[in-house]
Amino acid sequence: MPMSCPDRETCAALDAADPMAAHRQRFALPAGLIYLDGNSLGPPPRAVEARVAGVIATEWARDLITSWTGAGWFELARRVGDRIAGLIGAPPDSVVVGDTISVNLFKALGAALSLRPDRPVILTDSGNFPGDLYVAQGLAALKGGVRVRVVEPEAVMEAIGEDVACVMLTEVDYRTGRLHDMAGITRRAHSLGCLTVWDLAHSAGALPVDVAGVGADFAVGCTYKYLNGGPGSPGFIFVNPSLAGARSPLTGWWGHAAPFAFDAAFTPAAGVAEFQCGTQSILAMSALDEALKAWEGVDLAALRRKSVAQCRLLAQLVEESCAAHGVTLAGPRDFDRRGSHVSFHCPEGYAVMQALIARGVVGDFRAPDMIRFGVAPLYIRHVDIFDAAAILAEVLAERAWDRPHFRARRAVT
Amino acid sequence: MPMSCPDRETCAALDAADPMAAHRQRFALPAGLIYLDGNSLGPPPRAVEARVAGVIATEWARDLITSWTGAGWFELARRVGDRIAGLIGAPPDSVVVGDTISVNLFKALGAALSLRPDRPVILTDSGNFPGDLYVAQGLAALKGGVRVRVVEPEAVMEAIGEDVACVMLTEVDYRTGRLHDMAGITRRAHSLGCLTVWDLAHSAGALPVDVAGVGADFAVGCTYKYLNGGPGSPGFIFVNPSLAGARSPLTGWWGHAAPFAFDAAFTPAAGVAEFQCGTQSILAMSALDEALKAWEGVDLAALRRKSVAQCRLLAQLVEESCAAHGVTLAGPRDFDRRGSHVSFHCPEGYAVMQALIARGVVGDFRAPDMIRFGVAPLYIRHVDIFDAAAILAEVLAERAWDRPHFRARRAVT
Repeated sequence: MPMSCPDRETCAALDAADPMAAHRQRFALPAGLIYLDGNSLGPPPRAVEARVAGVIATEWARDLITSWTGAGWFELARRVGDRIAGLIGAPPDSVVVGDTISVNLFKALGAALSLRPDRPVILTDSGNFPGDLYVAQGLAALKGGVRVRVVEPEAVMEAIGEDVACVMLTEVDYRTGRLHDMAGITRRAHSLGCLTVWDLAHSAGALPVDVAGVGADFAVGCTYKYLNGGPGSPGFIFVNPSLAGARSPLTGWWGHAAPFAFDAAFTPAAGVAEFQCGTQSILAMSALDEALKAWEGVDLAALRRKSVAQCRLLAQLVEESCAAHGVTLAGPRDFDRRGSHVSFHCPEGYAVMQALIARGVVGDFRAPDMIRFGVAPLYIRHVDIFDAAAILAEVLAERAWDRPHFRARRAVT
Repeated sequence: MPMSCPDRETCAALDAADPMAAHRQRFALPAGLIYLDGNSLGPPPRAVEARVAGVIATEWARDLITSWTGAGWFELARRVGDRIAGLIGAPPDSVVVGDTISVNLFKALGAALSLRPDRPVILTDSGNFPGDLYVAQGLAALKGGVRVRVVEPEAVMEAIGEDVACVMLTEVDYRTGRLHDMAGITRRAHSLGCLTVWDLAHSAGALPVDVAGVGADFAVGCTYKYLNGGPGSPGFIFVNPSLAGARSPLTGWWGHAAPFAFDAAFTPAAGVAEFQCGTQSILAMSALDEALKAWEGVDLAALRRKSVAQCRLLAQLVEESCAAHGVTLAGPRDFDRRGSHVSFHCPEGYAVMQALIARGVVGDFRAPDMIRFGVAPLYIRHVDIFDAAAILAEVLAERAWDRPHFRARRAVT
């Protein structure tokens, strides 16, 4: 049985003693809103608006084409990549920003297949984000002779075999929060000659990652969740520098060793720079560059401790006050084996979440029955967690969700 | 021999009588600068800065995740696509914005190859942008059994044959401005069962295009040149609605018929929407959406007339005043067979362009020896053309370019 829950005063005391509390000031957060959806779209760091305005008024409007060199636009994808490298345990010059996570996943898988031409299988699991499965399916159909094998998350380790070219997994399950054993799976994959492609969408900025330490071959991620780069902000790709001969299948002029020589033949740039393809949005990359400054001086081990404590607190509070309404924790009970969001199976979950949002607590819903709350320790307080759980309990007790306008599911496409 | 050149007073009179002159007011242009590089990076329409600031402060910071539906973020790629459709002769719902032109070219080529599985050749020409060749080379290497055949621009028509899956061409040569016969080549390609993929990078916003009228199968383009979407703004793709069964090889969740059902299998969305892949930058797409409003009410036939007249004027003035310095027109002399930029072979062209920029006339240099000037009729005046030619003549006459700091070529990567 869980220990008895802390009260609101205790949560306020935890906030007062929180060494990370000051980071919250860096973010523009609407007054009165409890925003537990930063795992879907992070709020903007305050400095982003002025940075983007400056890029438009000065770098673009005033300096025009000269900004490609004068304002460092050409190097931005690699400079921002280095900021992300620092958050995922990658060495400098091994991460580049640009394109979407989907396109970067395609590049990584294509490169992995070309390094293991005699192996016909991309191995993944049913807990992976469906979009990742689509990318692998599309690549397999294009290339021919390759198939995508999908197993249960618990069966991945056993399914790794010598027919597998690469293991493609998302470290943190987007629904349940379950964390894969990145080190163990990578070790097992390498022992059988397989490469690994890790999706860090729910990892980067949520918990410490050590891509170089575990020897991951490729990793990709997005930057609009815990990295607060803005809606649809650019993806990133990590290519392990020890991987000789990894070739991107998306060969574009930004990945050329000398793009302005305008050679007819493609000569890859050195290292991860080859994994660039076409010209990237400077507005989007500049916003992300600025947003990532919110991470300067952040201790990732302390971030993880706070995240685990807040996730555990949320689960404890919700289970205590909402279990009678059929609400149960999804994913592992061991919070060290989870990422930084907490989902609950919840009857009528969609309507419940709509009613909760109407009372100023924003999470989201994931089919078939999960209400999901992201905990972003850079700006979430313990009192936010306490209040969110209390309001959820109210919504359920009052059956506030049982109104037609909350139950009507809008088709979102 | 050319007619005698108009003087500056005549050019000012042409501007005073120009029915398009008022459009210039929509753009933020630095005072005193003659910007003839809008074919590389268009200047911002004035309204863009406020629009982007509003997206950050209101849609993102205040409304957060609700903006995906509330602010229409989900539909933005297709709404902006419809704006571009109106500029390239495409019907509504046949153009979608997102990713880069390179990635969109990959999608189009991949789809074309899958529709012609028994044909091993992508046909292109040596006047194509090298980045396009790289994309085709990368796809061919990934897929296997496909090769890229490169012929001279004049030899394309003859080279089209029954082994060709698709003809991939850029309508306007990025160096010389030479215009391909899009209608004739497409007709010839179709008569032999080949598909066509047109790159409109130097066409969209530069001259009227009629993708539906000529029956083009696919077209791609960028939006940072004549469409003024900002540095690295998103690309677009047109897929002819009559093409049954065209499948994107980059299958991502934004191209799924029901992305939020989170199905394990990919079911393509109807029409061009399938050619979306991952989540796109809303900042970048919003800037582009606003920028494209500068095209509302623009008569494309009048735009073309002004473009041809201004390009001819520039060539005439430069040839008259600079021929003695070895400056000669590149590309066709028939201005109806050109796009909207004018390039000249020019000894020491790189240094000459640097000296010209130092005097406030911005064009660019393209290897091996071309100085290039973009004419964007929405905001370029006849007096700008006159002054640019006069300053170029001064620079050459004074050998102003013959200074070490102008001659030093910086390696740009």
